[in-house]
Amino acid sequence: MLNEAVDFLKMYYVETERPEEELMSRLAEVERGIEEHGFYEHTIDELQFGAQVGWRNSNKCIGRLFWQTMQLLDQRELRDEQDIFHALLEHIEFATNGGRIRPTITVFSQRDVRVWNHQLIRYAGYETADGIVGDPDSVAFTQKCEQLGWQGQGGRFDVLPLVIQVEDRAPQIFDIPAEYILEVPIRHPEFEWFDELGLKWYAVPMISSMKLEIGGITYAAAPFNGWYMGTEIGARNLADDYRYNMLPIIAEKMGLNTSSNSSLWKDRALVELNTAVLYSYKEDEVSIVDHHTAAQQFKRFEANEQTAGRDVTGNWTWLIPPLSPATTHVFHKPYNNERKTPNYFYQKAPY
Amino acid sequence: MLNEAVDFLKMYYVETERPEEELMSRLAEVERGIEEHGFYEHTIDELQFGAQVGWRNSNKCIGRLFWQTMQLLDQRELRDEQDIFHALLEHIEFATNGGRIRPTITVFSQRDVRVWNHQLIRYAGYETADGIVGDPDSVAFTQKCEQLGWQGQGGRFDVLPLVIQVEDRAPQIFDIPAEYILEVPIRHPEFEWFDELGLKWYAVPMISSMKLEIGGITYAAAPFNGWYMGTEIGARNLADDYRYNMLPIIAEKMGLNTSSNSSLWKDRALVELNTAVLYSYKEDEVSIVDHHTAAQQFKRFEANEQTAGRDVTGNWTWLIPPLSPATTHVFHKPYNNERKTPNYFYQKAPY
Ligand code: HEM
Ligand code: HEM
Repeated sequence: MLNEAVDFLKMYYVETERPEEELMSRLAEVERGIEEHGFYEHTIDELQFGAQVGWRNSNKCIGRLFWQTMQLLDQRELRDEQDIFHALLEHIEFATNGGRIRPTITVFSQRDVRVWNHQLIRYAGYETADGIVGDPDSVAFTQKCEQLGWQGQGGRFDVLPLVIQVEDRAPQIFDIPAEYILEVPIRHPEFEWFDELGLKWYAVPMISSMKLEIGGITYAAAPFNGWYMGTEIGARNLADDYRYNMLPIIAEKMGLNTSSNSSLWKDRALVELNTAVLYSYKEDEVSIVDHHTAAQQFKRFEANEQTAGRDVTGNWTWLIPPLSPATTHVFHKPYNNERKTPNYFYQKAPY
Repeated sequence: MLNEAVDFLKMYYVETERPEEELMSRLAEVERGIEEHGFYEHTIDELQFGAQVGWRNSNKCIGRLFWQTMQLLDQRELRDEQDIFHALLEHIEFATNGGRIRPTITVFSQRDVRVWNHQLIRYAGYETADGIVGDPDSVAFTQKCEQLGWQGQGGRFDVLPLVIQVEDRAPQIFDIPAEYILEVPIRHPEFEWFDELGLKWYAVPMISSMKLEIGGITYAAAPFNGWYMGTEIGARNLADDYRYNMLPIIAEKMGLNTSSNSSLWKDRALVELNTAVLYSYKEDEVSIVDHHTAAQQFKRFEANEQTAGRDVTGNWTWLIPPLSPATTHVFHKPYNNERKTPNYFYQKAPY
């Protein structure tokens, strides 16, 4: 842990141009902390910097241009489930900001706290005799919530409850009050029948299942959010045949020949679904970025990093958008997928 | 070389269920050949099998279901440029087959012969004061042809000459007679203005720049072909902004708002261009496959290989189609990019 702490603190002092003497005394302090307790506490500035650099280092993320704008909600002192629930509501409200989404991270205690949800707001998935209703990706977690006593409505877009665990106490379940949940009904600028599909999506993707590692310290509960890139909703969540699988019905409503692959009905339906997503979020003034603009922003990020003398690492397979990928510069160059820290990592699900 | 020869011959005898005794005497023969001359000669059956397995092992290729159907034209004895030219014409004619394309490979001498072209039929690219005319990807090779005395018409779709080198003699240049060159004018099933773009493409992609390695022997001149997957033409050759860059003009003719990324004008133009490519090839009865069908065929290939007890290797970044990749199963699974032999490899350009 000490080596990682030293590397991180040096980086922090150099990048933020803090005085060398201060670094020396800070290093001594951290070393003492690790010797005495086996860990140390980040200052709030270190934590914010570490969380931001973790974003900068997220190889799969095309949104990294804005890494310095992410705001920190420091909730490391909380140990009470109810308090943590309120902190999560605060995150949702602060991040959602009436649609002008703010990249935000809430950091909880380095041990002791765990949020079981994959995202703070996400739709349930129910296995029924007629197949899955809702989001197939949520089936396992939905069952877990049911075991914990939650009872869903059985709809296609039921927001799951928050499941919060502190220390080794039983996890507790909290419904998110409706007024915290901003959603966007998906409609199409030209196709009036699109409304009848009854599609919507939530405004803010807030990942709560990953851990944040900074200078040897692991934050297992550190939900973070940006805003959506349209294709995440329009070319994956609502489109994948193992998710909401909407392409066949959209193509049918469009009158396309779904019996012929070469009619490109999937490609046509996909473009319309993505058009509808971008149109709806924009009309509702909910932040969203299309994949072309996101790629242009990422190009600026690459240039910025080069100017700063840092290598950009990236995971090509995630960076390319799932719609017309070869129309973005990302498709046409290789990325080095080395992992730098601080960073966000997968961790074993607690259930 | 001996180890590789032994591995290959064993595989050949096992997979084709030839008798064990024969293998023993063949191995002895090959060993003697290598000791005496430093190389050995494949039988025509070994060569055909090796070329086919090289296709089966091509990690970037989504068309591998048909690996056993590729036909071999054995031209290993040729040393005369004129003869090689005629052999290449024979390849073009046999493979083109009036539009019912046959996967074909022509194998020349393991040493001594080199075809300088990247593909047997490809369009020239000219640097002019007003920018590049033709295929930007061909500029360097076009200049080389000009240095060798070739004079292009300066058009957008001038077929380059064949450049053939034998031993260390000067390369010789040959024009391909027009009657050998099958091309498809690209039109759109609905947009009448599409004709005015004046687009066309050649029927058969015949890669001539890669070397084929079988059992320790390298064939530096071994042009091979399948048929096109539509996206190669519609989502890359005619679409990439560093190739024919047709999306802006198509979008403009479609009346799309090209000043807004989120109008998805690139995505819309791309779908129409790909529609036009598939439509035109099909109407002209020139073999082509759309990316959805190709992915389904590749899935069958994966199943076949599993049944045969072989691992499928693949390069995900090439296997996913550049149009709506997430609508194919390929996008949603990882592939192991290990390189097996026999296989096709890049080699240094001879110029
Ligand atoms: C501000 C707007 C943002 C945009 C437009 C954006 C865009 C994206 C996209 C499109 C992906 C791929 C998602 C997928 O294919 O499932 C992604 C992944 C990721 N992003 Fe961002 N992002 C943003 C903000 C953030 C922030 C604030 C963080 C962290 C603090 C972050 C960290 C990550 C990480 C860790 C992944 C990988 C997630 C995983 O492995 O499942 N991003 N981002
Ligand atoms: C029969 C129809 C075929 C189809 C539809 C097909 C499809 C494809 C596609 C779409 C690519 C990617 C091209 C790119 O993105 O530039 C590819 C690459 C490749 N294919 Fe196939 N292929 C076919 C036949 C063949 C044959 C006959 C061979 C060899 C004998 C072959 C060997 C390869 C190789 C080596 C590559 C990689 C080329 C490179 O690295 O530039 N393919 N194929």
